[in-house]
Amino acid sequence: MIPRVTGFLHGGDYNPDQWLDRPDILEKDIELMHAAHVNCVSVGIFSWALLEPEEGRYDFKWLDEVIDRLYKGGIYVILATPSGARPAWMAQQHEEVLRVNGQHQRMHFGHRHNHCLTSPYYREKVRQMNTALAQRYADHPAVIMWHLSNEYSGQCHCPLCQQAFRDWLKEKYGTLENLNKKWWTTFWSHRYTDWAQVEAPSPMTDTSNLSMLVDWQRFTSWQCKTFIDNERESVQSVTPKLPCTANLMERFWDYDYFSLAESMDIVSWDSYPEWHNADNVAEAADFAMNHDIMRSLKKQPFLLMESTPSQVNWKPHNKLKRPGMHLLSSLQAVAHGSDSVQYFQWRKGRGGVEMFHGAVVGHDGTGDTRVFRDVTQVGMALEKLQSAVWQKPIKPEVCILFDWENRWAIDFAQTGQMGNMRYFDTVNMHYRALWEKGVSVDFCDMRACTDLSGYKLVIAPMLFMLRNGMEDKLHAYVENGGALVMTYFSGVVDEYNLAYLGETPHGLTDVLGIKTLELDALYPGQGNALVTENGRYEIGELCELIAPQGAKVLGTYESDFYAGDAAFTHHAFGKGQSWYIAAKLSQEGLNAIYGDVIKQLNLAVALQTKLPAGVVTTRRGECIFVQNYTDQAQRVTLDGAYTNLLNDEALQGTCTIAPFGVWVLKK
Amino acid sequence: MIPRVTGFLHGGDYNPDQWLDRPDILEKDIELMHAAHVNCVSVGIFSWALLEPEEGRYDFKWLDEVIDRLYKGGIYVILATPSGARPAWMAQQHEEVLRVNGQHQRMHFGHRHNHCLTSPYYREKVRQMNTALAQRYADHPAVIMWHLSNEYSGQCHCPLCQQAFRDWLKEKYGTLENLNKKWWTTFWSHRYTDWAQVEAPSPMTDTSNLSMLVDWQRFTSWQCKTFIDNERESVQSVTPKLPCTANLMERFWDYDYFSLAESMDIVSWDSYPEWHNADNVAEAADFAMNHDIMRSLKKQPFLLMESTPSQVNWKPHNKLKRPGMHLLSSLQAVAHGSDSVQYFQWRKGRGGVEMFHGAVVGHDGTGDTRVFRDVTQVGMALEKLQSAVWQKPIKPEVCILFDWENRWAIDFAQTGQMGNMRYFDTVNMHYRALWEKGVSVDFCDMRACTDLSGYKLVIAPMLFMLRNGMEDKLHAYVENGGALVMTYFSGVVDEYNLAYLGETPHGLTDVLGIKTLELDALYPGQGNALVTENGRYEIGELCELIAPQGAKVLGTYESDFYAGDAAFTHHAFGKGQSWYIAAKLSQEGLNAIYGDVIKQLNLAVALQTKLPAGVVTTRRGECIFVQNYTDQAQRVTLDGAYTNLLNDEALQGTCTIAPFGVWVLKK
Amino acid sequence: MIPRVTGFLHGGDYNPDQWLDRPDILEKDIELMHAAHVNCVSVGIFSWALLEPEEGRYDFKWLDEVIDRLYKGGIYVILATPSGARPAWMAQQHEEVLRVNGQHQRMHFGHRHNHCLTSPYYREKVRQMNTALAQRYADHPAVIMWHLSNEYSGQCHCPLCQQAFRDWLKEKYGTLENLNKKWWTTFWSHRYTDWAQVEAPSPMTDTSNLSMLVDWQRFTSWQCKTFIDNERESVQSVTPKLPCTANLMERFWDYDYFSLAESMDIVSWDSYPEWHNADNVAEAADFAMNHDIMRSLKKQPFLLMESTPSQVNWKPHNKLKRPGMHLLSSLQAVAHGSDSVQYFQWRKGRGGVEMFHGAVVGHDGTGDTRVFRDVTQVGMALEKLQSAVWQKPIKPEVCILFDWENRWAIDFAQTGQMGNMRYFDTVNMHYRALWEKGVSVDFCDMRACTDLSGYKLVIAPMLFMLRNGMEDKLHAYVENGGALVMTYFSGVVDEYNLAYLGETPHGLTDVLGIKTLELDALYPGQGNALVTENGRYEIGELCELIAPQGAKVLGTYESDFYAGDAAFTHHAFGKGQSWYIAAKLSQEGLNAIYGDVIKQLNLAVALQTKLPAGVVTTRRGECIFVQNYTDQAQRVTLDGAYTNLLNDEALQGTCTIAPFGVWVLKK
Repeated sequence: MIPRVTGFLHGGDYNPDQWLDRPDILEKDIELMHAAHVNCVSVGIFSWALLEPEEGRYDFKWLDEVIDRLYKGGIYVILATPSGARPAWMAQQHEEVLRVNGQHQRMHFGHRHNHCLTSPYYREKVRQMNTALAQRYADHPAVIMWHLSNEYSGQCHCPLCQQAFRDWLKEKYGTLENLNKKWWTTFWSHRYTDWAQVEAPSPMTDTSNLSMLVDWQRFTSWQCKTFIDNERESVQSVTPKLPCTANLMERFWDYDYFSLAESMDIVSWDSYPEWHNADNVAEAADFAMNHDIMRSLKKQPFLLMESTPSQVNWKPHNKLKRPGMHLLSSLQAVAHGSDSVQYFQWRKGRGGVEMFHGAVVGHDGTGDTRVFRDVTQVGMALEKLQSAVWQKPIKPEVCILFDWENRWAIDFAQTGQMGNMRYFDTVNMHYRALWEKGVSVDFCDMRACTDLSGYKLVIAPMLFMLRNGMEDKLHAYVENGGALVMTYFSGVVDEYNLAYLGETPHGLTDVLGIKTLELDALYPGQGNALVTENGRYEIGELCELIAPQGAKVLGTYESDFYAGDAAFTHHAFGKGQSWYIAAKLSQEGLNAIYGDVIKQLNLAVALQTKLPAGVVTTRRGECIFVQNYTDQAQRVTLDGAYTNLLNDEALQGTCTIAPFGVWVLKK
Repeated sequence: MIPRVTGFLHGGDYNPDQWLDRPDILEKDIELMHAAHVNCVSVGIFSWALLEPEEGRYDFKWLDEVIDRLYKGGIYVILATPSGARPAWMAQQHEEVLRVNGQHQRMHFGHRHNHCLTSPYYREKVRQMNTALAQRYADHPAVIMWHLSNEYSGQCHCPLCQQAFRDWLKEKYGTLENLNKKWWTTFWSHRYTDWAQVEAPSPMTDTSNLSMLVDWQRFTSWQCKTFIDNERESVQSVTPKLPCTANLMERFWDYDYFSLAESMDIVSWDSYPEWHNADNVAEAADFAMNHDIMRSLKKQPFLLMESTPSQVNWKPHNKLKRPGMHLLSSLQAVAHGSDSVQYFQWRKGRGGVEMFHGAVVGHDGTGDTRVFRDVTQVGMALEKLQSAVWQKPIKPEVCILFDWENRWAIDFAQTGQMGNMRYFDTVNMHYRALWEKGVSVDFCDMRACTDLSGYKLVIAPMLFMLRNGMEDKLHAYVENGGALVMTYFSGVVDEYNLAYLGETPHGLTDVLGIKTLELDALYPGQGNALVTENGRYEIGELCELIAPQGAKVLGTYESDFYAGDAAFTHHAFGKGQSWYIAAKLSQEGLNAIYGDVIKQLNLAVALQTKLPAGVVTTRRGECIFVQNYTDQAQRVTLDGAYTNLLNDEALQGTCTIAPFGVWVLKK
Repeated sequence: MIPRVTGFLHGGDYNPDQWLDRPDILEKDIELMHAAHVNCVSVGIFSWALLEPEEGRYDFKWLDEVIDRLYKGGIYVILATPSGARPAWMAQQHEEVLRVNGQHQRMHFGHRHNHCLTSPYYREKVRQMNTALAQRYADHPAVIMWHLSNEYSGQCHCPLCQQAFRDWLKEKYGTLENLNKKWWTTFWSHRYTDWAQVEAPSPMTDTSNLSMLVDWQRFTSWQCKTFIDNERESVQSVTPKLPCTANLMERFWDYDYFSLAESMDIVSWDSYPEWHNADNVAEAADFAMNHDIMRSLKKQPFLLMESTPSQVNWKPHNKLKRPGMHLLSSLQAVAHGSDSVQYFQWRKGRGGVEMFHGAVVGHDGTGDTRVFRDVTQVGMALEKLQSAVWQKPIKPEVCILFDWENRWAIDFAQTGQMGNMRYFDTVNMHYRALWEKGVSVDFCDMRACTDLSGYKLVIAPMLFMLRNGMEDKLHAYVENGGALVMTYFSGVVDEYNLAYLGETPHGLTDVLGIKTLELDALYPGQGNALVTENGRYEIGELCELIAPQGAKVLGTYESDFYAGDAAFTHHAFGKGQSWYIAAKLSQEGLNAIYGDVIKQLNLAVALQTKLPAGVVTTRRGECIFVQNYTDQAQRVTLDGAYTNLLNDEALQGTCTIAPFGVWVLKK
């Protein structure tokens, strides 16, 4: 897929532009890269001011030298477009490139990721710059890929964006009358009689129209996608064979990543877990899900584009990685589908807000540090894993529906635990129950979801908004033999964020054998429990009251006025079956439920054994990654004879895995 | 008072305008109203965009049909003026209607309750609209009352409002010299030499002049009153016999409701207690006081204009009412003087920010829900109570002084527990001590207070600011035989918020037999106690040091350097007597003090019995409401033979009241 | 130094301008001042509106009378310039005097301390006003000193200030190229190509350039200094013999007080400790350090310009001083070098935001209050101490480096505990370890520091930024026999906030015998401990990993992956020695370390005895102040025979000091 690349990428962001007056350091970098088993760096990410020091005058000479030096050193180059930060002269001369915030203030020059998403001038400047870069380096043998901009994010409220929003709405709704209907504008006399009356939601205008809020997210996500398309077309019209990526972010809310992924050839992302705080296992579960979402965006291996070789500098508490954690954390990405381990950044700058962000080379400038040795260890490990793991696929039997538009709709919804319905966290709890058991998972959204028939199990937590005929697809899937898990707060609104009339979950009451009645919100400190034949599991935050209509009640509420009422049901439908979880269950409760489901559906697990808490197994290709997220050695009983590819050690029976240890096992 | 109405109103806000394309639903509504024993709805509250779809063109046809359909169905109509939200075209074409916030930003179109209070154009448009509505429906037999706008609130900082504020000040102070003196502007060189220098207080101007802050509240409250007057005159010039109301809100701070009540014929309000959280009894005490304040505004029965039949949607945690709570909560309003139980809203909309607000009819569209049955139960109960309770008065022997201007002055005061002196909460603690014993209470402010002689007891907690000669009235009241309770932080400033010179409480040291020395503020976690002959009661937050000058010391401080000093005194003065509570006492302490006061003054209580905790009795007319705010059944010993009007059951001796149960007893 | 003054000043801010219509009160003031042993007041602090009621027309008549009346009464006058608050007419007529905030909003008239720091018009108006005042009162025998403005503070973002910032940068950096280099602007493409592109950091522009952030603080501090210079020159060109002061504030962050102190003849400050909350001893340690910093600014006695005789009114909880605390607190200032005890304020105003701020005379207007008696006691005590203490110096053997530029750089630094590195608090913990033992301390910053050779011990906590060749000075100091204590997070960046390359602490690794490796941040709730031969001491927040290079390891980490590694070292270097504390140690740990250091260096302590917790001794001149900050009587064993100058009592052996008691002992 990536031309000329024959194994894992290992390296990171590299900013030689900050050291042009120190050729000794630039030479030393190549030497240290070799020592660290680094083979790939990203350059030019924030270089616009150097590449175009004044409007229309390009200067590529320094970059020529940088890329040549790397090529001579045998280091791959991922070449960035510089649109993540514009030069000061552009802000000064072309106000329209400056973003307008939700307070309707036009921001002045500063920071980064702050351009107007619509500005025709900025898009044209980006196109010109990208074209020039592509023409200059089209045939350079070091360059393997485009890194489009950096961490796309944000929204703009300038007049150009307001008009673009209106145009998008006209395209979508055709008539104002239709928009008024779908936005339910009779409420509070909000009916529009002129398109010019429509303005983007903000504290200065309106935040009360929930349909508009979701549309504004759709629009700004789409606006970003067209911005990416502009960048991609400008480089690929010159270098059609060089793939494009854009580095994404964890738990990112603003843009629909399933949609953005269509505009890139390879997905990459920046992963910054917060280790050694309250709960390493929860943190690992969270980031495993992030990795799996990234892999699922295009259903192919992704790149870990940024991670820290040590601490970051931008969190409230910037803790060091403990010994072992760097390898453990890096190989988690690989286990879940990454074909790289890249860092931000190669060398710490002397200044700038990220001068203390962890880097492979620190201000001391040597390779004689704990961090440098940790990085070298990862480089060597990747070389060991190359033949068995690189480019190998992951083939889950389980699919979790995770949908950005549903996420926006839930987070805007005014009901229950307002603003705190915890969609992402809840999806992660369902995910974790499977991850802890070594079951692989795909993610899919409602737009991309076309065929579920390949999955043994589909899980759709909190499917509040239905779109794209999802209820019909789930109906067919179960009817034809599929297994489905759904929860409270599902099938409530349509794609316009309008409540369905009639019984809910809309279109799925027959599949589930229940209908919903009321949604109760508990105050902090209040609780309930699910009581089943096998146990009692804590419930908090949300309890839905449901009426079984054919489903078998597997569990009931323990207390409150709905004590004894159905809280967990199972229903046979067509050739398939469904479960419905009516309340916000504890992790322990979900673990118990999914333990049963795994057995019943005979789902594949990475390793057939009972694992100690905190030890997690993940299969990629033929390999099984065993990872110990605890700071204690753990005993693991293997289900056969394996070789640990990291050190070629034979492992069998009950073996000890070190604190923060990792094995990559192959039969 | 309300023409044609012969009993309790039961119903709520009704928005058929959102369903004009669903005549089946509009027909179904009438059917369901009958089933729910609903007899009255409010229509047109946010209908401006439909009533005047473009400037100057009215469309009443849809409303004609709505009102006719209701009339045919036997449902009363409360007709709203639509000024609570203006159409988008008006915002677009007439910027002056848009409110300017304290940051001096003119807000764009959106939300509701956001009009400039001064705008001559907006006032004129409201007048025209109201006149047209009145002319159209003047003689419609369904229409029984005007619902002016909705939940008046807010302030505007636009140039028109700035000038109106200056004009109001000129009228009040006559000369700048007088304003400078009364506002003590020599402090920090704030003397004005030109009226144009005066601007409304805001984060952009000044928040340091406490006299100005109180005047700004007075002005904006007055400005709202004149806005209401404009609305009322425009409808009553056409329909002089139709009474006007405006729905008020709980604990509302911005406007002086005693003053606003003068501009309406009937007081109504929107009551949204937060049941089933920490403490139902405290919540009930709080809302009992809210009800009694509403009844006191005009000293006549009021209307419960909004309440939820189930949960709301706009709190952080939107919990369901437990079984029984809906009837209990609704009849609390009735017990305290309401002649209606109205809901927001009849039917949930499909969209809009309140689409999940509790409603009589949900998205399922049926009457087969717990909520619908709860509502029906209330409708039937109101019919049972009609002859014995409807329009019946409440005649308290106790009056609590509660004054909006004093409240503003206390909340602005910089001393003691700054910004946290808790005036409203403190008044509520005094109130609760009486409410728990079944003693009825009137509220009065310093403006309305003309004759206290009808009361056996007057309570004036934290009477920080004196105005309207209040000290003289209290002096005369006690001298002539009245009983008075006062507390710390009283008689400190005059109506201009200027400190009195000399001994304090100003003008009342002889009545109370004490003078104040210093006000101590405790840090969180620090405490003291009041020690009396009968017990020891916790003190927190504030301890005033006082010097008795004739008063008898009934209790002293337990600790700190003022241990043993007077903290609670009694003084005989003229034919009357007074008590002074020098510290912020716990509820338990207040309960003990008022227990003694009730006995000593022989105040009437609703039921002569010792009540279990959480069971509260309230007398209205000849009926005694017994309400159990606990989730446990309770045993109540009656002082005679009664009939429970709700089910015609005879009750005598010791009886069991259900969890969240209610009786309405008559001898 | 202050002409005509022969002893301690006792008095405070006096605002007779607020009482010009009450001559009786103005007369009464003189009488009460005599009763309270008050001899000095500050007048005119916010009098501009009265002194220049319209532009160009001065009115000094009322002030003539005030000053004459005070002179006749034998009261010294400190005459203020009124620039702390301008008249309303000036704001109205000259917009440029209004400050622009970080949101780029021009604030309207209101509050105080809100002028643009650059405005040429305002500077000229101040000059004219000051000159007129000086001419009027040049020879008035009552006037002893100038009080320049009031509590200088704040920043302005107006165009004039933006241009002044650019001019200052041009002066400093010469060329844009040099500024780009020193600000490391290649990062994020922030290179400037036109000076006009540079704007002050703010939420509207940029907060990401840490070098710029520090320069902006330097600029605004310098801008304030030039403002002060303008004020000072305008008065001293007329009255060259009258000294100038400006009242400074506790823990003040915005301006470099070492620099500002150059622009005044005498340092004064406003001290508002928060007694009787969690920990009086910690509060006393904090304010002792504040006092010592003020004394160190010019290495001469200072004036306590404001303090409260009772409570303040502007804190969340405004607690009364307990009996004894007023004398104790006032004499703490004197013990640390104050030649005055002044209050804000003499008499409470009837209005204004500070109407409830503690004052010598309250709204009752009498001297018959606890506060008035406390003040009188202080006045009498000052008279007792005059010959032994007034103008007497303090001569420490210890110097702590405390540097405003380092403080800004640390607070902006993004690493470790971000935004919470606690520089000031940490310096205070080191200070407290010495203060509790009775060891006197000087403070010095890196600019003022020229010769350390007079000190036996230099302590440089968290010397993150080095400037002015500090590393060389410390090098020479230790080489020549000095003793140095340093800590983690030292020698990291140069004066441009650029990281040093190579080993750190930069320039001091040989002096310390260690180099630093990594900085670990602990999450809240996590801890470690320092283990030494003598004990185990808690560590939190920050642990630096270091490599000894010659230093002797005195203590190691107890746990984590660096358990057993060096955490506390000692190194002999040249004729001197150094200690390095690698982690954020608890107060107990610092106390233990400094206890050993004091013994080893044989540092002078105020009293040779073991003190009970909460009793602190301080030497000034020949006197030893013994202060009991606990609310319990304590037993103190004296090391000789003394007289308590406050009551002429002879004290010897073991004596009892009262709760909140104070002795001033002389042999």
